[in-house]
Amino acid sequence: MTRGEQAVVLFGHGARDPEWARPMLRAQAALQRAEPALRVELAFLEFMQPTLAEAIDRLVASGAGRITVVPVFLAQGGHLKKDVPLLVEAARGRHPRCDIRQVLAVGEADGVVAAIAGYAAECARS
Amino acid sequence: MTRGEQAVVLFGHGARDPEWARPMLRAQAALQRAEPALRVELAFLEFMQPTLAEAIDRLVASGAGRITVVPVFLAQGGHLKKDVPLLVEAARGRHPRCDIRQVLAVGEADGVVAAIAGYAAECARS
Repeated sequence: MTRGEQAVVLFGHGARDPEWARPMLRAQAALQRAEPALRVELAFLEFMQPTLAEAIDRLVASGAGRITVVPVFLAQGGHLKKDVPLLVEAARGRHPRCDIRQVLAVGEADGVVAAIAGYAAECARS
Repeated sequence: MTRGEQAVVLFGHGARDPEWARPMLRAQAALQRAEPALRVELAFLEFMQPTLAEAIDRLVASGAGRITVVPVFLAQGGHLKKDVPLLVEAARGRHPRCDIRQVLAVGEADGVVAAIAGYAAECARS
């Protein structure tokens, strides 16, 4: 990765069940296919590895100049309003030359809401 | 609702923050617009009301003959593998003439995975 390249961290809650990460791995693969120049890493708040700090530190060490933290959460709740901004703020303190941003939870995106409704409609019909 | 009609319960984890339910309310509205004949209710595992049992009992009382429980969760984890099947089984016991089914978590659906990746790509570009 050359200095200044862009990266995305798909950041999820994590769970005890290892299968829980599967949709995040699938989203990572889909994003990587769509945007081959983008570096895409996963990170977790609890139960799974790496942590957000570890993922960000690793990306910066390998030359990321801009990191977008995309919360793979269904909605903005306490974690995303309180805990995660503190983690992002701490990462900015460690890496003042890297542009690190947290965006809204994936569940707040129009396309994701539409896809949830579409899946539910399909399930009701089948 | 006439006897035998179809219903969907969008079933989420719930959270202390009331704003957390907003994407589920948006998905409910989108599904209702797309499928006006379908009855669409929300229910929650914790923190928010109604419970799954309350939502199902209400739908059956008003004539639902088939209820599809769509977990608005990011992945299949402990809740969906252990806790929710027990709730669905108990509801079947109370309502043996109603067809009550639990489908896979929305996050496991191809369309939702693609929408998550699409949103992340859009965020990285903006």
